[in-house]
Order: sequence, then C-alpha cells, then structure tokens
Amino acid sequence: MEDAAVDGVLSIPLSVMAAAGGPVLHMLRADSRHFSAFGEIYFSVINPGAVKAWKRHRLQEQNFACPCGLVRLVAYDGREASPTFGTLASFTLGLPDHYRLLRIPPGVFYGFTALSAKPAVLANCADMVHNPDEADALPPDSPLVPYSWPPPA
Amino acid sequence: MEDAAVDGVLSIPLSVMAAAGGPVLHMLRADSRHFSAFGEIYFSVINPGAVKAWKRHRLQEQNFACPCGLVRLVAYDGREASPTFGTLASFTLGLPDHYRLLRIPPGVFYGFTALSAKPAVLANCADMVHNPDEADALPPDSPLVPYSWPPPA
Repeated sequence: MEDAAVDGVLSIPLSVMAAAGGPVLHMLRADSRHFSAFGEIYFSVINPGAVKAWKRHRLQEQNFACPCGLVRLVAYDGREASPTFGTLASFTLGLPDHYRLLRIPPGVFYGFTALSAKPAVLANCADMVHNPDEADALPPDSPLVPYSWPPPA
Repeated sequence: MEDAAVDGVLSIPLSVMAAAGGPVLHMLRADSRHFSAFGEIYFSVINPGAVKAWKRHRLQEQNFACPCGLVRLVAYDGREASPTFGTLASFTLGLPDHYRLLRIPPGVFYGFTALSAKPAVLANCADMVHNPDEADALPPDSPLVPYSWPPPA
C-alpha cells in the first residue's frame, strides 16, 4: 500500500536546495498550481514510536511536509461515495529521500508515527484555521479503520 | 542585545500545546492580528555551528519560527531613516523555552546559526513568494554589519 492511490490525495515532490550550512526546503507557495488557500501553518511534534491517529476533517484540506526526522503517514479512504472507498495508503515523509508535499483532502482519515530515533516534526499548511467542530477523531486501534499500528517498542 | 528593540521587529510568544505523543506548535493563522499575507512557507536547515548570514529583503516580510533544534538569530537595523538605526538584536528560537514567532520587516539585515548539537530547522512564512531581485546578501564577516559570529568549533 506504499503510495497507493486514494482519490484526492496528492504526493508532490518538493525541492531540496543545497546551500552552504544546510539545505533550503520548499513547502508551499501562493503561486503554486497546488495552492488553494492559506488558513494556518502549524507543527506536530511526534516522539519516537508515538502514534497520532486517527483524524478526519470534514472541510479542511491538509498540506503536510516533514522538515525534521522521518514520519510514516497512513491515509484511509472512508468516503463511501469515493472511487477508492476502503483503500489504505502509506507514505514516508522526510529527508533525504522522501521530502515532499502530501495533500490529504477532507473526508480522508489519516494518522502518523515517527520512524526516526529522535522526535520528528510534521508541518501542516492547512487551507482553514483550526476549527474543532469540523474534525473527527478516532483512537489508533479503532475497528473503523483496517490498519494496525506497530506496538510501541 | 538579547531581544533588544529594532523598529518593526516583533517577537510574539506562540502556543506549545501539550498532546499525547508530542506537542502541537502554533505558528501563523490567517485570522491572527499579526497576519498580513501569505506568500510562501519554506524551511532552512542549519547544520550545527553553521552560520547563514547576512540577508536583507527590500520588500518581503519574514515570519520565523523554529520547530526543531535551537537557533540564534541576529538582526541589524541598517535603515538610516529608522529610529533604531545601527541597533543589533539577538534572539534565541526553539523549544522548550523560546518557541515564538519572530517577524523581520523589509530593510533589516538578519542572519542565524544553530545552537543545537543536531541540525536545526528555521521555518519562514513570508508574505511574498521568493524573488531574488528584492534580496541582498552579504558575507557573514561583512564590515557593514558590526557583529562577529562565533568561529566554527
């Protein structure tokens, strides 16, 4: 299921520009053809081995990138009307080989864990400001999502 | 010169919200009173001990936060018409005690270094898309800025 297709999920390669002292990492520009709207940019720190799952937004679009550490993000299409209903997709995010923008549309469940030995940071440039009324949460082991997170080490 | 005042430079405390598995870090929201416009979000990785300096934008406003590692950012007011012309200000950015938004207005020189033993990441949510025509660069040891970066360890 690595990089499997879920309708509306986009995985977009991002530039890592070599520079003296450390690279510069693009994420999202207002003139990009992938840009829709700016609502909020925030970060989720993920301790090694921790699982943050599941979340689903009814209105908000997520734009994720990982500039620090390594993250595994799993998406699940629980939209009954979707052509990919029931599909799971797993993505690795982070430097040096998996630096990219991952777009998760409204209605798709997602969760993530840190693969790195140090805390990872997942940036989200969402198209709306945070509104808890449009988000649903399920526990990591919810039977509504057919995915088993690895047990804590 | 720690947190000294340079006209137009803003240091804004940001929320670090405790959460299972790792904190959530606010950065910038479209409905914040500090928000002006969204141009681009990108990251600068800074290897331990590396210095990235000096940069000055003529039009672009910088909004910095450090979600990974620890950064020292130095600002220098080289604007002759500014009430704080000639002032240097130094800021520490990063978790756990210095997580904040630092706004650098056009015309102010800035540079930064990583204080952490691992690479640090400085996020910039700028109000314009990158345009090299409106930016000036000087070497870290330029005599135009009266600041000496520590020598490499």
